[in-house]
Amino acid sequence: MSVSLQRWGSFHVGGREVRVAGEAVREVLYTPGSAPARLDPNGTYLVGGMYAQFMLPEPRRGAVPLMLWHGGGLTGACWETTPDGREGWQHFFLRQGWEVVVGDAVERGRAGWTRIPEETGGAPVVGPLENPWLRFRIGPGTPQEGRVFPGQQFPSDPESWRAFIRQNVPRFTTTDEMILAAYGALLDRVGPSAVVAHSQGGFFGWRAAQEWPDKVRALVLVEPASVGLAEKVAALRGVPVLMIFGDYIAEDARWPTIRGHGVAFADAVRAAGGSVDVMDLPARGIRGNSHMIMMDRNSDEVAALVQDWLASKGLWR
Amino acid sequence: MSVSLQRWGSFHVGGREVRVAGEAVREVLYTPGSAPARLDPNGTYLVGGMYAQFMLPEPRRGAVPLMLWHGGGLTGACWETTPDGREGWQHFFLRQGWEVVVGDAVERGRAGWTRIPEETGGAPVVGPLENPWLRFRIGPGTPQEGRVFPGQQFPSDPESWRAFIRQNVPRFTTTDEMILAAYGALLDRVGPSAVVAHSQGGFFGWRAAQEWPDKVRALVLVEPASVGLAEKVAALRGVPVLMIFGDYIAEDARWPTIRGHGVAFADAVRAAGGSVDVMDLPARGIRGNSHMIMMDRNSDEVAALVQDWLASKGLWR
Repeated sequence: MSVSLQRWGSFHVGGREVRVAGEAVREVLYTPGSAPARLDPNGTYLVGGMYAQFMLPEPRRGAVPLMLWHGGGLTGACWETTPDGREGWQHFFLRQGWEVVVGDAVERGRAGWTRIPEETGGAPVVGPLENPWLRFRIGPGTPQEGRVFPGQQFPSDPESWRAFIRQNVPRFTTTDEMILAAYGALLDRVGPSAVVAHSQGGFFGWRAAQEWPDKVRALVLVEPASVGLAEKVAALRGVPVLMIFGDYIAEDARWPTIRGHGVAFADAVRAAGGSVDVMDLPARGIRGNSHMIMMDRNSDEVAALVQDWLASKGLWR
Repeated sequence: MSVSLQRWGSFHVGGREVRVAGEAVREVLYTPGSAPARLDPNGTYLVGGMYAQFMLPEPRRGAVPLMLWHGGGLTGACWETTPDGREGWQHFFLRQGWEVVVGDAVERGRAGWTRIPEETGGAPVVGPLENPWLRFRIGPGTPQEGRVFPGQQFPSDPESWRAFIRQNVPRFTTTDEMILAAYGALLDRVGPSAVVAHSQGGFFGWRAAQEWPDKVRALVLVEPASVGLAEKVAALRGVPVLMIFGDYIAEDARWPTIRGHGVAFADAVRAAGGSVDVMDLPARGIRGNSHMIMMDRNSDEVAALVQDWLASKGLWR
């Protein structure tokens, strides 16, 4: 079914200036058969900006824009399609009438990247295609062996796995403050929004809502990798939060800890007067979800739960 | 004016497998407050893929998809907006009824990037915001001084310049073969297309049309940085080509050479039975265009010339 767009496009926001001096001028032949160019690396660099792409459908039914913040090692592309080629959550929410804003966080995707390690404080982490199989709770062993947990919803056939891995990008563990600042600049530019954040994005979702609570009208955390600042829980009083967790957590090496942190933080936010709903999908009879819920075969079913929750908060009409 | 989309989304294509062995397993704390994860860097890497985003409007009037291939140091975002926030060529051609496919070439944007320098053969070139001012024929001196060539069409105010620079990404000079192979995979997946390529993209446009002439129905080269292979000019016999050049070329240090190579190659293609139209915008009374024609204030005027040319080749109805 077609969708009518009133506006669409992209922009970059955030970042700061860095001055570089004392480096040698050199000559670069950018393209074979071109002409050499003089490159003076000294000057002004813009570091720590991010990219965002927006689509505004008509009729518009979301009361505010809905932002999709990706997880670590990924870009905004993770919301645009699933590894088996179905429509992503970007499509789902656009079809519901939300203005959808998909971001590429600092040093990833179209945000570009910068001088490494001078501006990043370290080298990025790069892993092989075998790595996320167990970590994202697809199955034991390796993708080549192909065994999955019972009832697995992630499209784990070899072709889909490769399609997923192609979306993966290296990630830094040293750029969190830059990323948070850029999300602040994004919220500032777009204005008050509902934020849907996955995994590492959940860390920035919590932190951004604590820093700029007037800009985050609702926060949906899909398997958030971490929590906010304990000393700032009171800032979240006016921000309704939904946390969603998938299946196979009890048996995982790390996820009981990570989920435990999340649930404890939710308790602390509630104790400070805030509102956090924790949705364990298996407890609702929805089984088989990996860490990559927005890519799982039942991705639209879970998106519908998010949609209902956002509507219940008065953000959709 | 709104646009109706029949389909939209993205995918990754291309690349090859690389096996890594003998590296040390380590522990990584990806996100503060998370739980440490074991990272075994040994295994299989997918290297050299690219990203593409497609939008299919209705009614559809383009006979084939229209691909937009960015230049060096840029990503597909360069087609999505202009530095002063107007609509880009993506919008223009979508509004004309073309299915528009915007790519991010290997090691840039959402294509992701890989282990450096093991898979890239070298480190990328990164330059300061001062660098493209003269090289892209905006003006003499620096952007901070703000002097522009007479009649300059590029939006060169400080805010626009920063918006443009934020789009810039580091670029390799060592990955050309990977990029060409990925464009081949893209053409293979999407099928025969009209290709509009800018600057470094023009190099890949020529080369791709020579390698896969049945997949390139027309080639529009916007200030191509280089040419194709002299020994394969005959392969271009069935591919109509349009080359477009902007203003201020005669006074530039490099562009008389680069344009000269292009015009000489066009002659060679014609001598082999091909068809190449060379459009110097100033000769048509269109003045003030920088190297970044799709971002200049008269970007839609030039896009309309491209549109008319594509229609004259029977590719639009």
